[in-house]
Amino acid sequence: MKDLYPSRIKGMPSILERKDPIIHNSTKEDGPLQRKELDFYEENGYLFMENFFSFEEVKVLQQELKRNMNDNKSSHQPYVVRETGGDEIRSVFDVHNNDEFFHNLSSHQRIVEIAQQLLGSQVYINQSRINFKPGFKGKDFYWHSDFETWHMEDGMPNMRAVSCSIILTDNYSYNGPLLLIPGSHRYFVQCVGETPENHFEQSLKMQNIGVPDHDSINWLLEKGGRIDSATGPAGSVLFFESNTMHGSNSNISPMPRSNVFFVFNSIENKLVEPFANISPRPEFIANRTNIKPIDPKPFDINKKKVLLQQ
Amino acid sequence: MKDLYPSRIKGMPSILERKDPIIHNSTKEDGPLQRKELDFYEENGYLFMENFFSFEEVKVLQQELKRNMNDNKSSHQPYVVRETGGDEIRSVFDVHNNDEFFHNLSSHQRIVEIAQQLLGSQVYINQSRINFKPGFKGKDFYWHSDFETWHMEDGMPNMRAVSCSIILTDNYSYNGPLLLIPGSHRYFVQCVGETPENHFEQSLKMQNIGVPDHDSINWLLEKGGRIDSATGPAGSVLFFESNTMHGSNSNISPMPRSNVFFVFNSIENKLVEPFANISPRPEFIANRTNIKPIDPKPFDINKKKVLLQQ
Repeated sequence: MKDLYPSRIKGMPSILERKDPIIHNSTKEDGPLQRKELDFYEENGYLFMENFFSFEEVKVLQQELKRNMNDNKSSHQPYVVRETGGDEIRSVFDVHNNDEFFHNLSSHQRIVEIAQQLLGSQVYINQSRINFKPGFKGKDFYWHSDFETWHMEDGMPNMRAVSCSIILTDNYSYNGPLLLIPGSHRYFVQCVGETPENHFEQSLKMQNIGVPDHDSINWLLEKGGRIDSATGPAGSVLFFESNTMHGSNSNISPMPRSNVFFVFNSIENKLVEPFANISPRPEFIANRTNIKPIDPKPFDINKKKVLLQQ
Repeated sequence: MKDLYPSRIKGMPSILERKDPIIHNSTKEDGPLQRKELDFYEENGYLFMENFFSFEEVKVLQQELKRNMNDNKSSHQPYVVRETGGDEIRSVFDVHNNDEFFHNLSSHQRIVEIAQQLLGSQVYINQSRINFKPGFKGKDFYWHSDFETWHMEDGMPNMRAVSCSIILTDNYSYNGPLLLIPGSHRYFVQCVGETPENHFEQSLKMQNIGVPDHDSINWLLEKGGRIDSATGPAGSVLFFESNTMHGSNSNISPMPRSNVFFVFNSIENKLVEPFANISPRPEFIANRTNIKPIDPKPFDINKKKVLLQQ
């Protein structure tokens, strides 16, 4: 398969034009998003929906996140990622496969139908995780495009995936909210450096390879004109395009940040061999076997019950 | 001299009531600040004045900051502090003594008269520095009270000092602005741990000792009700009380942050022996010899000229 987006190169990096649509053959008739929302996503590469889930739903989601972390307290499963130099759980991956509640949440009609509308096809989950970022010592995360990693290390051929972050704690400007460069999804920034085998073991905690250079970030920022912060109350949901340049500052404030994170990929964009010359990353980071399109179902979060199709 | 604010203790830290006034016997008749501004400072422990200096003045100040850093490029003076693991200059200390322009700025009537009004006496400069925080990799700085350090390591007896930060680059919410806990200046948070000799060599780059515990920060935040960010355009000036709890997050954005920083201390609050059982820190960090009150003079920043007294 032709590599549309070569990266991890030697020498000087280039900025390439995006070769895929942003919204894939969809209109407002194809899903819950309105024209205005589709336009915002198309232009900026993300869509922030305040109070998407109700106060009561957020309370249940927070409880389930804690319950899951507690379930995994003594787990030695590779999908449980702990803080560097500590025993605290930072993230639990693959929750759509290993946890019934989060499996049902990942198939919830309310979010899946948005992903389908944006990607113009049926979708499946490429990666999922719940994140708990403690207060006082939340680390920063440098600028990156998720697609660059997914393309090089997982073999995602095209830009036809969308991340959905369900925000479970209030995100203030000062507790390390996600920062995004609007419009950056229209350009592919090549990164310099070869990818070592088993790079993921480090990169889940800190990015080293697959890091864009300063000049490219400056260029994107000049194009985009600003940095946006995903701030808002718990229960808000952020959809952002696979290639949108994003990162976050540290968090010295006492307020922790928790979220649930689903990556929806188009069923027409299944993973192939990684475009970096390495073995694929493990299944809990990038699903590649037994891929089936999600059958979206209404999910009553308060009752933790999947409803019968109307 | 009695130690009003014991710290660096063994065992459990306490939170002590402040024993000094916040505004020292002054009214709006004693200086340029209005009643409303004095009240805000009294209640919150800081005062942010937008566009205090004009666009033209800011340009000159930025040029002089660069000129000073350039002058010090190959300097081995201890007052030139470089980035950890790099050669770049992070701060130049003692600029009110070693640089004519910044000496004149530090005596500028417009700022000195505010310090005099807040401290209710003549003032002198206890510490000065210019700071250049690069974009992309600005580190975070954990919560601290400056007074706790000045008291323990420099021997400042009372809370009767005010910091003045002249902001020379736009401070956005996402490029690591100063964060403050309003009202925290009313309480002294004891810190745990003994102070090693020559602690300052490390602490100018990163705080380890003199760090408040999580419970105390949570307590202050509950009292204060919020975290405030010192965001605003270049040319704004922040005055903050010696004991106001503050810190800053990292800065992954490309926007650097530069400022000029003067600590005004009351002439009636001169340094004594450090309250931690250590030798005093060097003169470039804490002035203790040849202390004379500042004679405030109008300074024409654009012409770089001290004006004759009217």
